[in-house]
Amino acid sequence: MEKGILLIMDGLGDLNNKKGKTPLSASKKKNLDRMAGEGILGMLSPIGRGNIPGSDTSHLTLLGYPYWEYYCGRGPLEALGSGIKLREGDVAFRANFATVEKGKIMDRRAGRIPTSLGRKLEKKIKKIKVNGAEVLFRSTVEHRGVLILRGKGLGACVSGTDPHAHVQVPKSRALEKGSEKTARILNEFTKKAMAALCRAEENKGRKLPANAVLCRGAGAYRKIEPFAKRHGFNGACIAGGALYKGVAEYIGMDVLHVEGATGTSKTDLKSKARHAVAALRNHDFVFVHIKATDNCSHDKDAKCKQKIIERVDRELVPALKKTGANIIVSGDHTTASCTGKHTGHEVPLLCWGPGFRKDSVKKFDEFYCMEGGLGHIDGWDLFPVMANAMGKGKKVGT
Amino acid sequence: MEKGILLIMDGLGDLNNKKGKTPLSASKKKNLDRMAGEGILGMLSPIGRGNIPGSDTSHLTLLGYPYWEYYCGRGPLEALGSGIKLREGDVAFRANFATVEKGKIMDRRAGRIPTSLGRKLEKKIKKIKVNGAEVLFRSTVEHRGVLILRGKGLGACVSGTDPHAHVQVPKSRALEKGSEKTARILNEFTKKAMAALCRAEENKGRKLPANAVLCRGAGAYRKIEPFAKRHGFNGACIAGGALYKGVAEYIGMDVLHVEGATGTSKTDLKSKARHAVAALRNHDFVFVHIKATDNCSHDKDAKCKQKIIERVDRELVPALKKTGANIIVSGDHTTASCTGKHTGHEVPLLCWGPGFRKDSVKKFDEFYCMEGGLGHIDGWDLFPVMANAMGKGKKVGT
Repeated sequence: MEKGILLIMDGLGDLNNKKGKTPLSASKKKNLDRMAGEGILGMLSPIGRGNIPGSDTSHLTLLGYPYWEYYCGRGPLEALGSGIKLREGDVAFRANFATVEKGKIMDRRAGRIPTSLGRKLEKKIKKIKVNGAEVLFRSTVEHRGVLILRGKGLGACVSGTDPHAHVQVPKSRALEKGSEKTARILNEFTKKAMAALCRAEENKGRKLPANAVLCRGAGAYRKIEPFAKRHGFNGACIAGGALYKGVAEYIGMDVLHVEGATGTSKTDLKSKARHAVAALRNHDFVFVHIKATDNCSHDKDAKCKQKIIERVDRELVPALKKTGANIIVSGDHTTASCTGKHTGHEVPLLCWGPGFRKDSVKKFDEFYCMEGGLGHIDGWDLFPVMANAMGKGKKVGT
Repeated sequence: MEKGILLIMDGLGDLNNKKGKTPLSASKKKNLDRMAGEGILGMLSPIGRGNIPGSDTSHLTLLGYPYWEYYCGRGPLEALGSGIKLREGDVAFRANFATVEKGKIMDRRAGRIPTSLGRKLEKKIKKIKVNGAEVLFRSTVEHRGVLILRGKGLGACVSGTDPHAHVQVPKSRALEKGSEKTARILNEFTKKAMAALCRAEENKGRKLPANAVLCRGAGAYRKIEPFAKRHGFNGACIAGGALYKGVAEYIGMDVLHVEGATGTSKTDLKSKARHAVAALRNHDFVFVHIKATDNCSHDKDAKCKQKIIERVDRELVPALKKTGANIIVSGDHTTASCTGKHTGHEVPLLCWGPGFRKDSVKKFDEFYCMEGGLGHIDGWDLFPVMANAMGKGKKVGT
């Protein structure tokens, strides 16, 4: 039976610049273009035509768990990705260390504090007690962290405290009945976290002290049917970013530890390649995630995105190709480098390997893919297409 | 009003061989290619992208009865196709005469016994009585037959007794509550059939005696909205294979008797053509089924498949074309001649006639169809496309 690799370059799709070029179309990528010539192309709408995907909803869907049924909010996915074992009913939030002055948000990333500072501040936060639930907190990368509330009667339909704006820190509110307790506890936590952090030694002398924790992406964790049972074959995840590892953990893939995989533009692509090739020995399916493409787009740096694509083409793609596995290369959404935002434009899609047909298109980018033999495909149809190429699809009827 | 013909070559789609050819792309088929030049092409996913169709689920869907709502298991369809009138609640199985030695399955087709032997053995089986239900049995073609259990409280969620392997004949088990009685009766029948067949004169001297009946594809029959009522026009079916006649019977099409239509590579295509043309006189829609293409693929004989396609092009297509009706030519799934198995790859689709637009593509095969003007279409969308071409679609709203 054939193996499969899904290589997702986060936010791969882009809009053309004034010269009509996108980072992908401008890049020198002879390996990907050769695969395009040998494979079949198409355009992918990860969560349906025109809809703007989040990375979380998109990845769930692309991995065979349609978002409308399986998405549980960003919080639990970030928490799982940072290595926290969640229990059924835990309510988790994505958290940011932020700078607040007289109650007003000055910088919602506290000047992107270093990870080491986050680790130190985590210790202060962990001492916080609230009424009616257990508080778990973990700092992850730079200003990022996760907050988990564990206890009885915690709903997850609450507003967050991170409005992405220079305003007073808002109070969390219950958005549905049954979530009042969660909102109350989050507000209590926010207050106590500010009190603890403003006393922290580590913030002394910082122009942008990390003196608050802002939370968003509330979600309640629940166990779902694991990957191998659902699909009939096992899968491994190779990613640096916590969210992607979290998605994989949530759906029961094996999340591998990959040294040098950082989820940044400094990620060690050759290490990722080695781990992906090794993972294929005892896994049928390997998901490889590259975050840096999206980071560049969010920074409105199309040139940087192009360079990452070129590095992926040089340092990662050849090793994957050599395995002879069926390979799908795409993105989880388009991120427009001109605005730095996710959009609902289709994402170029490349399928290569023994289980795929071949079309006549020779290059891999937003324009060539429009003419690809796979046509226009929705995200929830991609996994069946991969499973079929692997000879592991499920027959319906006789 | 315009008429319509749906010509399905079973398992028409294929994967390319080392020379990049499929049976369809390698075949000489000037009539189909001329229709391609005059019509519009596309790629069909009978039960959705990447999903692997059975012939039953696919045909139901292509004829306007989406499988997820209307599929009742293979048994009832085979039974209906063999001419048995089913009653609401009957539980039917596809059955095989098989060779069993000391309880172990030696050949699940008893060396593909001739149809005449099956007819003789049928008489022995018909005498079997079981507790709590009526047993009906009919042998059909070669080793094939159908078993019907008729009575009260029979669920259809039972495992079969034909594991497709050289193992002990397994006991049927209830897979859901309410099907226990069916499993018990099937096991009683299986035992009594073995007893009756091992005494049969007809098996004497046979190296592979047909001394057991193995059952699979359990399904409960229910009446559904008939074709003419559902679609607003009537339809006729021209097929040799029992399963396809069964699908047509189930959905209330007129199943025509066509001499020489055998469901094999020796089928009389000219007879099918004559009957199809005649059927158009008093039917708006005619479904013509060719089984032999799939048989060749299952036998991993791409050359044979190519020859069948060429015969269809010569002996059947011109007569259909001459009617001036709207014609759709496609398959119910891809069957890979290299593996002999159904796959979830798309199937080439050709639409020709006064009700269809025209695209710029000139030939009919897996590669040209990728570039067709109809794009990529799911099976459940095909019937509305046909009805619309016929000027008989349903308007939604005003």
